[in-house]
Amino acid sequence: MANRSIITLLTDFGLADHYVAAMQGVILGICPEARLVDISHEIKPFGIEDAAFTLAEAYPCFPKSTIHLVVVDPGVGSARRPLLVEADGHRFVGPDNGVLTIPLDRDPKCRVREITAARYFRQPVSNTFHGRDIFAPVAAHLASGVPAGRFGRRVADWVAFREFRFAQTDAADSQAGRVLHVDRYGNLITSFRVSDFAQKPFDLVVHSTRVDQYSESYSAAPKGQIVVVPGSGGYLEVSVNQGDAAQATGASRGSAVTLRYKHP
Amino acid sequence: MANRSIITLLTDFGLADHYVAAMQGVILGICPEARLVDISHEIKPFGIEDAAFTLAEAYPCFPKSTIHLVVVDPGVGSARRPLLVEADGHRFVGPDNGVLTIPLDRDPKCRVREITAARYFRQPVSNTFHGRDIFAPVAAHLASGVPAGRFGRRVADWVAFREFRFAQTDAADSQAGRVLHVDRYGNLITSFRVSDFAQKPFDLVVHSTRVDQYSESYSAAPKGQIVVVPGSGGYLEVSVNQGDAAQATGASRGSAVTLRYKHP
Amino acid sequence: MANRSIITLLTDFGLADHYVAAMQGVILGICPEARLVDISHEIKPFGIEDAAFTLAEAYPCFPKSTIHLVVVDPGVGSARRPLLVEADGHRFVGPDNGVLTIPLDRDPKCRVREITAARYFRQPVSNTFHGRDIFAPVAAHLASGVPAGRFGRRVADWVAFREFRFAQTDAADSQAGRVLHVDRYGNLITSFRVSDFAQKPFDLVVHSTRVDQYSESYSAAPKGQIVVVPGSGGYLEVSVNQGDAAQATGASRGSAVTLRYKHP
Repeated sequence: MANRSIITLLTDFGLADHYVAAMQGVILGICPEARLVDISHEIKPFGIEDAAFTLAEAYPCFPKSTIHLVVVDPGVGSARRPLLVEADGHRFVGPDNGVLTIPLDRDPKCRVREITAARYFRQPVSNTFHGRDIFAPVAAHLASGVPAGRFGRRVADWVAFREFRFAQTDAADSQAGRVLHVDRYGNLITSFRVSDFAQKPFDLVVHSTRVDQYSESYSAAPKGQIVVVPGSGGYLEVSVNQGDAAQATGASRGSAVTLRYKHP
Repeated sequence: MANRSIITLLTDFGLADHYVAAMQGVILGICPEARLVDISHEIKPFGIEDAAFTLAEAYPCFPKSTIHLVVVDPGVGSARRPLLVEADGHRFVGPDNGVLTIPLDRDPKCRVREITAARYFRQPVSNTFHGRDIFAPVAAHLASGVPAGRFGRRVADWVAFREFRFAQTDAADSQAGRVLHVDRYGNLITSFRVSDFAQKPFDLVVHSTRVDQYSESYSAAPKGQIVVVPGSGGYLEVSVNQGDAAQATGASRGSAVTLRYKHP
Repeated sequence: MANRSIITLLTDFGLADHYVAAMQGVILGICPEARLVDISHEIKPFGIEDAAFTLAEAYPCFPKSTIHLVVVDPGVGSARRPLLVEADGHRFVGPDNGVLTIPLDRDPKCRVREITAARYFRQPVSNTFHGRDIFAPVAAHLASGVPAGRFGRRVADWVAFREFRFAQTDAADSQAGRVLHVDRYGNLITSFRVSDFAQKPFDLVVHSTRVDQYSESYSAAPKGQIVVVPGSGGYLEVSVNQGDAAQATGASRGSAVTLRYKHP
């Protein structure tokens, strides 16, 4: 029961405006016992892919059946559908624009509904702030115990990003990946899974920089050296101990990264 | 009872320093069951008017009798009075500098008290941090159930901003308004209420830019076009779909906006 | 019991990435009733000294036995020890890198333990995110009532910063201090304690600026004048009313400040 009432929030609203608080106020009016936890509100405006990554890194740390409210929604007011997703043991409320790609990909038994039950919306519904008027009240009613089926019918298709569907191909001498995320420290989190590349020696090429030193942690590397580190999210990261790998390599989110197997 | 213990916080303290946490610690020491919700701490330093706007947009989303703690207080340590306000079904604690203008204007039956009961303050009271030493403990005691009358006597006058008291004048061919707020996306939120201008066609002039396209939502406008949108707070907004209207027009908070009726 | 479950968080993770939420999710999975309060996540990356100052200003405002989780940890993955500290009536969980200097200095009876009990860790423990895998779960188990002694043995030495151990020397005509912190308003918080310098008149020299005007509050000073103010944390501050003393003097964190006694 306690777990049920956790609601996380992930938006591109920033922290200066009243938008996040408006959603929180609406939630507490419907479900006073909800536990509100911010994942991030500093997603770059309209940064759907970055929100998808950030969500994927955060949600598995929460207890099962937590409700994750994701409002990065450049299509607000258009025909894009509001979704309620049950996947990977968690629940997600957000727009159908790809932001929920990763939990949907991870769970073949996921259940996806289009939210249509206007009786759970805040009225009148504005055209510009569905976070406050649709997504927040739906998450709050869900936290209050309203069954998922009440919010709308199941749908069989949804928007997903291919970029996260990286698959290793054994044939090649090299693999093409990219930078999924650059964190506050300038670490480049790549699309290569640590577990996929544990066997054979390799190096990474980011822009024109070749990185062939491997370090088990940021701090084990000599200061200033660019290294590959097995990151806490399970991805290979390019890092500089107490430095900034993004700056050192000139790479940013989306930059191409090539993994090349070393030959003996 | 649950609703009673929500305390929102709105300050210009920023999130880097210890100031917000100091207030939260003081509150939890007095009222451990208080629900703390941040409205914003990123109000520009000393931005009383912007705080007044942000408060006005956020507080109605919260349940009735929520306590809103507002500390944007350039006059801290001076003779400006600390106020406890009951207005519009909510409760407000903050300095008498105009930051509470909007709920006070909205409720002719508002009750305003000067906070004088030092037994509820944190001792010793510093001259530079009344947020921690006066406003936070008063809000916490209020949340704990201390009646408003215990904190001080009612007063009949208070500081208010005229800028928010926009009234439509029917006579004119045009109306003078201004930009109340620029949000993270660069939307210009004007002082014109949507409901006042629903009847006759109009355009808006912001700086030297004339905006005569109207869109029901941000996303319904062609990318890059400057449009008027009925905003979620009930104000006319000037927006660019996935763009930045502040940048496109050169306007900022306080800029003049003229609404001109169109003639057939 | 209510007090026991407050956990504050202080990190250099910033608010854009998923790192803070990951820790909060882990905590709520272990101790659903924990009260989470952010002190700051905007400590400059690797800013151990600034985190030590911020912690010292914030923790005494919280109820006794609050758990303070401090993760500013450039040495993550190295041999630096994770510590559990009981000091000054509070509990602290963080790396042994000086960030806990001030509560340790304040309490001669402090108890310090090296955290070694891996059964309380999140498995597998990454090399790059001990906040999520060691510090957060330990704080959560502590909040759940696990006695401190279960997490590891007491140790008698730890890393501490000398910079905070300022002592007045009576002999000299002047005292050497420094800027401990620059806050959002540009106030320079110096290492001089107000209580140490209440007796004799003095002035301060910051860079090449001599400050000899004293004001009881920020707002009591004429606008634009640089003044010395007795700060809310008990330190002498250099301030400009509605201005920015850091900008006015060119000083920053760590800058030398000289206090000179005035001769009649």
